[in-house]
Amino acid sequence: MSDRILDMISSPADLKVLSVEELEILALEIREQIVQTTSRNGGHVAPSLGAVDFILALHSKLNCPKDKIVFDVGHQAYAHKLITGRLGQFDTLRQEGGISGFPKPSESPYDVHPSGHASDSLSVALGLAKARDMRGTDEHIVAVVGDASIAGGMAFEALNQIGQDQTKMIIVLNDNEMSISHNVGALMMHFGSIRASNQYRATRDSLQKIMEQQGVIARSMLNVGRSAKDSMKQLFLTHTMIFEQMGISCTPPIDGNDIRAVRDVLDICLETNGPVLIHLVTKKGKGYEPAVRAPEKFHGISPFDIRTGQTKGTPSKAPKYMNVFGEALVKEAEKDQDIVAITAAMKDGTGLAPFASRFPKRFVDVGIAEGHAVGLACGLATGGKKPVVAIYSTFLQRAIDQMIIDVALPNLNVVFCVDRAGLVGDDGPTHNGMFDLSYSRMIPHMRVLAPSDEAELVHALHTAIALDGPFLIRYPRGEGQGVPLPDEPQVLPVGVSRVVREGDQAAILAVGNLVNQAVVAAYLLAEEGISARVVDMRWAKPLDRQAIVEAAATGYVITVEEGVISGGVGQGVLSVLAEEGLSPRCLTLGLPDEFVPQGKVPSLLSHLGLDGQGIADHVKKLMGDAHAV
Amino acid sequence: MSDRILDMISSPADLKVLSVEELEILALEIREQIVQTTSRNGGHVAPSLGAVDFILALHSKLNCPKDKIVFDVGHQAYAHKLITGRLGQFDTLRQEGGISGFPKPSESPYDVHPSGHASDSLSVALGLAKARDMRGTDEHIVAVVGDASIAGGMAFEALNQIGQDQTKMIIVLNDNEMSISHNVGALMMHFGSIRASNQYRATRDSLQKIMEQQGVIARSMLNVGRSAKDSMKQLFLTHTMIFEQMGISCTPPIDGNDIRAVRDVLDICLETNGPVLIHLVTKKGKGYEPAVRAPEKFHGISPFDIRTGQTKGTPSKAPKYMNVFGEALVKEAEKDQDIVAITAAMKDGTGLAPFASRFPKRFVDVGIAEGHAVGLACGLATGGKKPVVAIYSTFLQRAIDQMIIDVALPNLNVVFCVDRAGLVGDDGPTHNGMFDLSYSRMIPHMRVLAPSDEAELVHALHTAIALDGPFLIRYPRGEGQGVPLPDEPQVLPVGVSRVVREGDQAAILAVGNLVNQAVVAAYLLAEEGISARVVDMRWAKPLDRQAIVEAAATGYVITVEEGVISGGVGQGVLSVLAEEGLSPRCLTLGLPDEFVPQGKVPSLLSHLGLDGQGIADHVKKLMGDAHAV
Repeated sequence: MSDRILDMISSPADLKVLSVEELEILALEIREQIVQTTSRNGGHVAPSLGAVDFILALHSKLNCPKDKIVFDVGHQAYAHKLITGRLGQFDTLRQEGGISGFPKPSESPYDVHPSGHASDSLSVALGLAKARDMRGTDEHIVAVVGDASIAGGMAFEALNQIGQDQTKMIIVLNDNEMSISHNVGALMMHFGSIRASNQYRATRDSLQKIMEQQGVIARSMLNVGRSAKDSMKQLFLTHTMIFEQMGISCTPPIDGNDIRAVRDVLDICLETNGPVLIHLVTKKGKGYEPAVRAPEKFHGISPFDIRTGQTKGTPSKAPKYMNVFGEALVKEAEKDQDIVAITAAMKDGTGLAPFASRFPKRFVDVGIAEGHAVGLACGLATGGKKPVVAIYSTFLQRAIDQMIIDVALPNLNVVFCVDRAGLVGDDGPTHNGMFDLSYSRMIPHMRVLAPSDEAELVHALHTAIALDGPFLIRYPRGEGQGVPLPDEPQVLPVGVSRVVREGDQAAILAVGNLVNQAVVAAYLLAEEGISARVVDMRWAKPLDRQAIVEAAATGYVITVEEGVISGGVGQGVLSVLAEEGLSPRCLTLGLPDEFVPQGKVPSLLSHLGLDGQGIADHVKKLMGDAHAV
Repeated sequence: MSDRILDMISSPADLKVLSVEELEILALEIREQIVQTTSRNGGHVAPSLGAVDFILALHSKLNCPKDKIVFDVGHQAYAHKLITGRLGQFDTLRQEGGISGFPKPSESPYDVHPSGHASDSLSVALGLAKARDMRGTDEHIVAVVGDASIAGGMAFEALNQIGQDQTKMIIVLNDNEMSISHNVGALMMHFGSIRASNQYRATRDSLQKIMEQQGVIARSMLNVGRSAKDSMKQLFLTHTMIFEQMGISCTPPIDGNDIRAVRDVLDICLETNGPVLIHLVTKKGKGYEPAVRAPEKFHGISPFDIRTGQTKGTPSKAPKYMNVFGEALVKEAEKDQDIVAITAAMKDGTGLAPFASRFPKRFVDVGIAEGHAVGLACGLATGGKKPVVAIYSTFLQRAIDQMIIDVALPNLNVVFCVDRAGLVGDDGPTHNGMFDLSYSRMIPHMRVLAPSDEAELVHALHTAIALDGPFLIRYPRGEGQGVPLPDEPQVLPVGVSRVVREGDQAAILAVGNLVNQAVVAAYLLAEEGISARVVDMRWAKPLDRQAIVEAAATGYVITVEEGVISGGVGQGVLSVLAEEGLSPRCLTLGLPDEFVPQGKVPSLLSHLGLDGQGIADHVKKLMGDAHAV
């Protein structure tokens, strides 16, 4: 048997009997477990390692699941998973059928809300606190939010109400100092100046002593029946935190990797009758040197060698789409000085790092603020620039209104480069890009290109920049098809598809990266004597009407896209057929009307019948059914 | 000829020769013009009257259109319209083919951005300022934002970047004190405490003198070549404004209805090299007593009698949908104590006032913060409550991501009551509810009901509350059909439509309020010997598959909905037909793939071919075409 403390923890209640020293040993064991598992499965290593200590402190003082911890984004919550009954399944982290890399209520009663998109925890926690107060119960509500997430607009909207309503709740600000180097946003600079203040340095230099003392004072005050307010006054900052001015009591920065210090401050804060923000400073990657040295690399990482920190994995066959995009944009920007690139806290994740290095003055990172990113692009476009907004499909959902009202209504020259369109794999449903074809196609004036390989992406970007009006390009996560990149990008004719394989018994109209699966399907069908045409639609909007009419002439039209059916290209094709009065047998293949779970993309596509074999089977069934009719 | 100054103003340049006294006379003339025109056309009277003076001060100091003023929301900009060459068309305000009630770039080079949705002006202005700085020109960029709008998350995201980047721009905070009575948000309370401070009272009590003095000091300082920073230090607040802590210089509150005072502060602020926030306190409705006394009523108002302030208009035939909703929700809440109502700054506009009076502790107004409103609902639902979120169709576009990730993914019991679905009339394209059917139908787990009259709305609300999971109900602006309301609301069977008129030569599948137009069409068709069935689909999701199959048997299926085609019910019907292998002739009627301009709704529907006659004509054409084929 193991003599790990971790193996004896079946629920957070088991923490109650541990001393601080034992909790510190447990923290070491959890770190080792996280590094072990993520080295095999990949995952969010650095954030999770940095959060181990305060998560243990929280669970040792709270009584979950009666008390609620709402994690913002939630990829830092591995320690929470390990001590809430999921140690045994932890090796399935982020695997198909395994436990999620994010909190997931259907997985555990300790997971309060499905996390994944930033800045929502404060709203959810306030709702939980209001429900509690309406019911008259007394559980604690805690939101854990990072320094980048708290700067998002939705978080500010929640703080605005929390400060007004004075609802009892605890906000744990997990300030991991990453933001100092990035330095995105006035709020971040504000945090930085607080960290650099004398009070913080004093706190940091002799933190344990001070906290012990404060803890004693606070406890004695509580013991003699005084209100917690008195001790709060000693502890909390005044007039130095923006949040204080909004009515939220704030602690000075406290070492979030010091379990004792966090427990002491919790003793005071849990007794307070209003909103309290506990400002924890933590170290990303703490306890695993490679992650401390390269916290950005270890933010979210694929499997790696524990000893060296080097990522494993097969050598790549082709460049990633995001890197092809990034390099192509640099080339476009060399020729056109009006191009400006905008990211929402995803410089590396969208492939914009080379652009940012080459054109620092034409690069804007707005932080986690997609709505503002799109509004900013509108101002730049109105001012004569050509903004290119690179945001993942799932996160651009935060700015659909701005796409409609601020971009499309005045018909501005804004290009959206939508990465991670379609299924993303291990990150699961909060990160899948299922809806972008639908939410972009419904918007007037919007043109939508879905390149089927990395060469097409280069042409698509060139086209979007060359043409006027709102434009959206969607492309998937991961590697391209390994095709050669064009020397000279071309302007693609608007609304014109291309036939990638001829055939006359059925026509497969495919969108984006599924064009290749459609070609595989056509080969498989040919082996059975069925001649299927494959069309790369290229344009999700406007659709190629002529190609659709020609497809109808085969008698069987099958559309294939990696997006939901409702509002997608397939339904657009059905509309064209109806308008033309044509009645081929039709089948619209795409993502189902449900959230697709985590797993490897090829495996998921196979389950969904969207790989070559699946498409071929669908086509045969359609043709067979029709003959049966 | 008139001897009004207003008639001599063809562009803002004409203001330059006027004295302050003449500007004050002009302000009176503009107020009279606004009251005259809006008394006939309706409009946003109180906000526009309050903003006249500072708009004149701004235009007298700026050089537009080289300089740019970005109005947030923009319904306060009538004075701006009147002095930028649109006096002659001002009587067409908000009329079909006339000038817009909001800034509209296609209408005038002085209108920088189409306003209508709150909190976007700072992002757009920052983009304009960045474009300016990249280009190296020197125009001034001014954003005019109200105290409610600046509390929106998107505005905060922009402030966060403005404070960091220290971009030269002016933010005019139009603080009209409305918010004191409403008291929504910590930021509003913060404004209130600043207004109540000694500094403000001193400013207010002897504002003109102080400003003159400061103006002189500032000018002399500027004259002797010192940087504007020195004079700024005297003028600006430190450590009392949240924005100051974010790096944005803020003036104390200044009387925004005092043209001289605003001009003096502009003299200083226009010379400043960073972001400056000018805190103007204005009086909503100023200059027209009925509007001062009832600023909420005169926020947006239909035509009224100038002498009494009483609204005109024909007596209503039926209650408004929003009021039916509000009353029905009170009845539901009397029976179910878990129901909580949430609004985003639209208590009156969504019909929730009776609920708020009856159940103040179960009513939450989050301010202009739709994303947070939905996140809050998630917390309440997780905490066992049944939140009902009432937001206009167009504004709910701000929270589509939250609907997907926070509500639908965990399958929470949140009911969305979506008012102003479809065309809204005079407010025009920023306020039309064109997309809600598409953005709700694409979301897994979401059920969508579109009641065709006010009785159906009562049943729909009851159904949404009775059933589990995410639910959306969409209903139009304005009056119902005049049908009796049910004594006992029923739970509508999921995905079951109802035939409202039998017929066997064609089937019109209609959605929501267009069911009545479809019935009119059926009568018109009957006169020509065509027997058309009319089905009230009731459910936009899930669709009634059986009804669609039966409709196909007539040979002609026509869908009718007041929403865009892409992703709407019509395309959903096409999908069902394709899945069933059925090939009737089909026509999907709905809103076009363009932004629908302002006008009266019946007239717009007629132009779009969506009234009874238009639908009948479409059906005949479809049947004729088919026979021709």
